[in-house]
This record gives sequence, structure tokens and C-alpha cells, in this order.
Amino acid sequence: MSEDDKTKFLKCFEQLKEELVRDEIEDNQVQIAVDWIREMISYNVPHGKLNRGIAVMDGMRALGKDEVSEKDMWKAMVVGWGIEWLQAYFLVADDIMDESITRRGQPCWYRQPHVKMNAINDGILLEMQIYKLLKRHVGVKDPAYAHLLELFHEVTYQTASGQLIDLITAPIGVVDLSKYTEEAYMRIVTYKTAFYTFYLPAASAMRLSGIEDEQAYKVANDICVKLGQFFQIQDDYLDCYGDPKVIGKIGTDIKDNKCGWLVVQALKKCTAEQRKIIEENYGKDDAECEKKIKALYVELELEKLYLEYEEKSYKELTEIMEGQSVLPKELFSSMLAKIYKRTK
Amino acid sequence: MSEDDKTKFLKCFEQLKEELVRDEIEDNQVQIAVDWIREMISYNVPHGKLNRGIAVMDGMRALGKDEVSEKDMWKAMVVGWGIEWLQAYFLVADDIMDESITRRGQPCWYRQPHVKMNAINDGILLEMQIYKLLKRHVGVKDPAYAHLLELFHEVTYQTASGQLIDLITAPIGVVDLSKYTEEAYMRIVTYKTAFYTFYLPAASAMRLSGIEDEQAYKVANDICVKLGQFFQIQDDYLDCYGDPKVIGKIGTDIKDNKCGWLVVQALKKCTAEQRKIIEENYGKDDAECEKKIKALYVELELEKLYLEYEEKSYKELTEIMEGQSVLPKELFSSMLAKIYKRTK
Ligand SMILES: [Mg+2]
Ligand SMILES: [Mg+2]
Ligand SMILES: [Mg+2]
Ligand SMILES: [Mg+2]
Ligand SMILES: [Mg+2]
Ligand SMILES: [Mg+2]
Repeated sequence: MSEDDKTKFLKCFEQLKEELVRDEIEDNQVQIAVDWIREMISYNVPHGKLNRGIAVMDGMRALGKDEVSEKDMWKAMVVGWGIEWLQAYFLVADDIMDESITRRGQPCWYRQPHVKMNAINDGILLEMQIYKLLKRHVGVKDPAYAHLLELFHEVTYQTASGQLIDLITAPIGVVDLSKYTEEAYMRIVTYKTAFYTFYLPAASAMRLSGIEDEQAYKVANDICVKLGQFFQIQDDYLDCYGDPKVIGKIGTDIKDNKCGWLVVQALKKCTAEQRKIIEENYGKDDAECEKKIKALYVELELEKLYLEYEEKSYKELTEIMEGQSVLPKELFSSMLAKIYKRTK
Repeated sequence: MSEDDKTKFLKCFEQLKEELVRDEIEDNQVQIAVDWIREMISYNVPHGKLNRGIAVMDGMRALGKDEVSEKDMWKAMVVGWGIEWLQAYFLVADDIMDESITRRGQPCWYRQPHVKMNAINDGILLEMQIYKLLKRHVGVKDPAYAHLLELFHEVTYQTASGQLIDLITAPIGVVDLSKYTEEAYMRIVTYKTAFYTFYLPAASAMRLSGIEDEQAYKVANDICVKLGQFFQIQDDYLDCYGDPKVIGKIGTDIKDNKCGWLVVQALKKCTAEQRKIIEENYGKDDAECEKKIKALYVELELEKLYLEYEEKSYKELTEIMEGQSVLPKELFSSMLAKIYKRTK
């Protein structure tokens, strides 16, 4: 992403936040609640990598052959922030459900002593602020408006649906490896990550560009699902093999009993004896156990398996992008370029 | 409400639920998640009084002079269920935040051992199911559709905004009577109850009837806010003075440190000495303390004050309804008739 885009995008955030705060003041909101809302937005919305939000800008350019009007680019930024707001909502809720401690280098919002379970209600506010942004800056006169609302609803539902499977497949404190199948894994990943991370930005740009051909959305959906799977498998790989100094955190998937790509592959490849090692050591908050799992991953050559997967997937993705003529391939290749061979 | 309406309305629920479950199956959802979603809807959505949902049907008839087509009445039922789904969402979340034990005669959803904090995610699913209902049964070709989406968004935001003030005015375990002002009370009540209980059904019926005059929505909003305040003040009164056998629960507002109408009035009327009694006994989980508060309410003649308020409010409301000619007065009087002099 260009520095320029990021600067413009962050400037847009400040305006959107101030407008939301001003709404409260104009509605005679009590002062403590105005202050709360301002703090809550600042704490939870802008501290991510912003890839999802900025992807809407990239998508507009890919679709508009670089001749996108200022007005349309502004709408793209607002919808991009809508996606970031949506993610903030998911993360606030997810951290409570996962009993997480930190997020984006600061304590999770619900861990703030003055917040606690109020975070649930803040999630509702964050979510509904998306629709305030869309109403103000896209609005009912834009033919894309109702479609964008439906798109956000649909993707929110899909993401919560992925969360549901994740929550009941791997409940906190329960290890049931029989549930860690490749099928379950792909379903969770597709629903809880791929749709909002890849399809939502791409389809938002398509709606803002006036595309109405439903077939084009089908094509975009198929490609974005594959991109999302690729992205999450990388994420799971980096959790174990990434450099903590580069990824900014120490991976905890093994200790946390995550249904991640590596353990799913290990369960597919292992002998009965090796399976016992997984059963005895996976999901334990113990450095020795984690070591044993990592040693088994080496034995099973999972790193090699991953690198093969990465190459194969990259080739496949490129072929699909180039094999369709419904949409400019740049809509997707710009997203793929950002994640291929990433180290964080 | 007529028995016939209630029967039709409940039959509609069964269909809507089955459609949502069928969506999951057609989307190849994993079986445990399909079962979860069915159970979660059945547990949380249909067990209330259904007044809000059925008010949309009443509203349609008030606006259509009883000549409402079957098709429009069907849409009214679906939107009515949208309101019931929205309430289910609020209640699931509210019960976690209030650490409540029971709801509608059964354990709160989050208290089910297999649910716990997954209830937060279920709330998101419930909320997004509203938009699935509206998309399927109203749909983008109906000119009311985008307006209905905005209406639900707006009212959801207002309700969460009321919850926010409530949560920071009376946090669990903290008694700070200086915050229990009439102004704070009215703001909380208006936002967390009035909009979704009265304005949402009325405005939904207006949208489905094709009313586009923004002034009419302003009038409806003003009247509905007053109806909602009246309704919540009754609720607070009944918590203390209602017959537990009739209202179906034993009031706990005094023990629970609620910023309710009675304590707000007591704080307005009391002497410095009486205020000390409130400070020492309000919000304590102790029968003796509760007794002292109730004795003080008698001393301050709060029951009389309430009955005066009820009469005065009823008169005012009737006058406002009759004093406007933008909307048929039946749209509101049917709601008022249902709550005036209620005992539960
Ligand atoms: Mg998490
Ligand atoms: Mg999680
Ligand atoms: Mg990870
Ligand atoms: Mg409550
Ligand atoms: Mg509450
Ligand atoms: Mg009450």
C-alpha cells in the first residue's frame, strides 16, 4: 500500500470519528457517554494493519482503470472504514469469548477495569456505527446503498457462523482431536476469516463501481474464499514458524488448543503412536508439551508440506484469476501480492 | 390483542425459524451448528409477551382503515418478528451484562452450561437473522425496504446508547446516588426502552404502509417516546407495588440498585435525614434494608405520587394523540389502551 493511501485513509478516520461524536453531542447525549464513545472508538478501531479497509481503495482503482473520481474514492474510504469498524466489533467480542489478554499490543478492551462486560454493548455500538457511516456518506440515493447494507449483513452473519463452529469445535479447556478434521478446519476458516477479509473489500469496491452482474459476485466470492484460506493457513504457519520479533507476538496456537492447519495436517499424517503424542501434549499450557509437539511437526516434515502447499496454492490462485474474464485480475492480484511470502 | 392474531403470529414464527434453519442446511452448515441455531432461536425468541411484534399488525390496521391486504399483513408479521428477534438479541446481551439468573421463566441463555460466553456470538447471529427475514420477505423491490433497514439500525443504536448510559450510571456493585437524577432517568428510559418498544413497531407499520412524509415520523417519535416513558415508569412502579402472583416475579429493583422512577422521586422529595436512609439501604442484598426503603417510600407517599403521574400522563398522551392530524390516532391509542392501568 502506498504511504499516501494510508495517510489519506487515517485522515478519513479522524473525520468519521469526530462526526460520530458530534452526532452524540447534537443528540444531547450525556457527557460521560460522549467521552466513553470517543474513547471506545479510538481504542478499538484504528490500530490494526488496515489492509482490509485500504483494499477497498485498491479495488476501486483495479475496477476503474485508475480513473476513479475523488467522490468515489471518498466513498471507498468510508466503506473501507466500515470494514475496519466491523472487525473491531468482531475482535472486541472474540476476545471476551476466547478470554484473551492482549490485542494489537494493548490490553483487550474488556480487560480495562472500567469496561468489563460493557464491552458487549460497545460491540453493538461499533456495529451500528458502520450503518451511520454508510448512511451519511453513501446514502439512499446511491444505487449501491441497499446492496452494500445487504453485503455487510450477509458477511457479518457468515463471520458469526464461522465463529459458532469454531467455538463448538474447540471449546476452551476441552481437547477433542476427533473434531479437528480438514473439513471442519476449512469451513471455520472460510466463514470466520475469508468472507470479511477478502470478499467484503472486493465486493464493496464492485458495488461502489456499479457492478450489478450477479455472476461477477459469484466469481469474486470463489476467488476470495481461496485467498482467505491461503491467508489463514499462512497465519497458522507463522504462529509456529514465524519470527516472534517480526510477527510481533509469540505464537500460542499449540498451547491454546487451536484447530490450526498444522495440527490438522499432523493428525492426517501421523501414526497411531504419534497420535498419542498429540493427544498427550496438545492444548496444554506447558513449555515441555509444546516442545514435544514442535518436535513431532519436524518429524512429520510439516514445514516442507506447508511450503509445497504455498507454492501449489499460489499457482492455482494465479491460474483462476487469469482464467476468468468477468473481472479485472488486478482486483485480486493486488490482494494476493500483499500476502504471498509474507513473514508477518 | 385478538387470540386470532396471536395464533397467526406464532404460526409465522414457526415458518421463519424453519426457513432460517433450512438456509443453514442448504449452505452445507455442519450438523452440530444447525442444531445449535435451531435451539438458540427456539430458546430465546418466542417466549415473551409478543406485544411489540403484534403492535405492527395493529399499526397496519390503524393506518389502512382495516383494509390491509393479506400480503401486507404477512410483511407486518415478519417485521413484527424482526422486532422480537431484536429484543431477543438485547436480552441475551443484557442478561450477561447484568449477571442475571433467569429470564422469561427459564435460566438466562448464557447460564446454560454449554453456552456461556458463546451467547455473545449468538446475539450477533440473532441480530443478523433479522436482516435475513427482511431480505426474504420484504426485499429490495419494496420501496419500504431500505427505510426499514435504516429504521432497525437506528433503533438498535439508540437502544445500545441507552444501555451505555444505564451501565455507566449504575455499575454493578457501585451505589452513587448523585447520578440518579430525573434527567438521567428519562434519558435512559427513552433510549433503552421507548424507541424499540413503541417507536419501532409504529414506524415499521408506517413504512410498510408507504408513508414517506418525514414530519409524520417526527410526530410518531414524539408520541412514542412519551408512551415509552409512561410504560417504563409503570414497570418501575409495579416492581415495588405490583402483585408478585400477577406480574410473575418478585421485584428486585431496590436490592439491585436500579436507577428506577421510585428512587429518583424519593431522592427529589427527601430531607437530608431521609436521604441518609436511602444511602445506607439502597442497593443492598438484604431484606431488612429493602424494608426500610419501602417504609420510606410510604412516608414520602410515592404511591400517591405515581397515581397522580399516571392520570396526568394519560390525559396528556390522549390530548397529544387527538391534537395531531398527521396520523390516525388509533395507531397510538391501541398501544396506550394495552398498557393503561395494567397490573402486569
Ligand atoms: Mg481470538
Ligand atoms: Mg475466537
Ligand atoms: Mg493466528
Ligand atoms: Mg437486565
Ligand atoms: Mg441492563
Ligand atoms: Mg423492571
